[in-house]
Amino acid sequence: MLLNGQPASEITLLDRGLAYGDGLFETILVHQRKPVFIAEHLTRLRSGCQQLGMELDTVALESELASVLATSTVSHGVLKVMVTRHASGRGYRPGLATCNRILSLHPAPDYSVSHPEQGICMFVCRQRLSRQPALAGLKHMNRLEQVLASREWPDESFMEGLMLDTDGLVIEGTRSNLFAVINGKLLTPDLSQSGVAGVMRNVLLKNFGAGVNVAPITLDQLQHADEIFVCNSINGIWPVLSLQTPDHTWHFASGDRARQAQACFTEALV
Amino acid sequence: MLLNGQPASEITLLDRGLAYGDGLFETILVHQRKPVFIAEHLTRLRSGCQQLGMELDTVALESELASVLATSTVSHGVLKVMVTRHASGRGYRPGLATCNRILSLHPAPDYSVSHPEQGICMFVCRQRLSRQPALAGLKHMNRLEQVLASREWPDESFMEGLMLDTDGLVIEGTRSNLFAVINGKLLTPDLSQSGVAGVMRNVLLKNFGAGVNVAPITLDQLQHADEIFVCNSINGIWPVLSLQTPDHTWHFASGDRARQAQACFTEALV
Repeated sequence: MLLNGQPASEITLLDRGLAYGDGLFETILVHQRKPVFIAEHLTRLRSGCQQLGMELDTVALESELASVLATSTVSHGVLKVMVTRHASGRGYRPGLATCNRILSLHPAPDYSVSHPEQGICMFVCRQRLSRQPALAGLKHMNRLEQVLASREWPDESFMEGLMLDTDGLVIEGTRSNLFAVINGKLLTPDLSQSGVAGVMRNVLLKNFGAGVNVAPITLDQLQHADEIFVCNSINGIWPVLSLQTPDHTWHFASGDRARQAQACFTEALV
Repeated sequence: MLLNGQPASEITLLDRGLAYGDGLFETILVHQRKPVFIAEHLTRLRSGCQQLGMELDTVALESELASVLATSTVSHGVLKVMVTRHASGRGYRPGLATCNRILSLHPAPDYSVSHPEQGICMFVCRQRLSRQPALAGLKHMNRLEQVLASREWPDESFMEGLMLDTDGLVIEGTRSNLFAVINGKLLTPDLSQSGVAGVMRNVLLKNFGAGVNVAPITLDQLQHADEIFVCNSINGIWPVLSLQTPDHTWHFASGDRARQAQACFTEALV
């Protein structure tokens, strides 16, 4: 692990990332020692920093990324980047715009390789996402809603949880974005009020182009979808075979759009 | 500073408080070496832990609090307690319910002693608070909304910022709760959807008893208030003499209810 370019395992107890979640993060797939979608991750990180009023030293960050990848023995894994605003005394009001860069390389999650092929079961979480346009889309470090939602499913037969916002609109998985074919049209939820605009989602939006619409989706619409899949930049694309509430289970077939999305992901690995 | 009872200045970069803001905090006034409203702070912390599904070792915490106060040279200051959920691998889903206890003692903020007597100017922030009943009331570590709001006022002539929720209801200051006399009645905003249920607010609610109503308050109602004050357990009660937006300033007189609330605060210091 690197903290501002120096090997480190700890950070000051006064850090604003710890105190207030005053920061952003990225989790980047490392495949054959190469960071996948690295340009997209860095673009999102820079844009998030700008939105929160933080100044990121991107030259230093890129050099640290290269150094971590060059010196590690992990050839397939997850590179996590956190940036937290520098502290200058107690209190919410930031005194400085500069921020810490924290890099850590982890083994890849040991999910079954069959998920992309065979699909997953998704739990419909009771925990809702609040609507906050000032933070929507950002991968910031205020993640208690996702933490609470992730506690809900009873066992590991559920690979993801579906989250709605407080208005009842479908937004995303706890750690993935969602696409669905509804009445023959490929849709993904609008994230202007809630949710994380994932790198994989952005790649797929570009890839599908005019073939995909960003639109509000209700749970009722989703339950009648022809096809559903979730995506993130670490695991790629997982078809959703069932949505489950305590009362009911809805079943879906894996479909063509998930296969097209998977092709887009596997191309990036080459 | 103590981390789980041991002197420490740093915490692991893998901490869930840092990664996700997965924790809670209290800031406790220390006056003449004694922690003020300590029972109320511990009650709120325990209740917050229960709500987030964290198990806090309160026996250890109380012993650590006593130890920090006994060994420090600070007789007047702020004792900050953070609790963060123990990590067990990457990912939102918590593996453990136990948590870290982080204690730090800081000098008291050097605010002018004249604020309780002469009152303060309050800036009306554009940043809104989202509505999230699962987290409302808790002093959790997801505080980006307060951080963004605290960047808004232009200079230190503003001692606090007023925050509304995304529905336009008045909720609180960035680091204080608010009371207002409107049409002769003492009111404080309902915090069931947004905001932090402060310890000083709770003390005042008990103290005023039937003389105060918890109710929704609009900005328009507040601008026509007879008297406004903000409170927290560190600074006590500050009368609000003006509310300012970029376009307009509303003026208020300091009043009897603020004086009564101040008496309640100063009694606790004896």
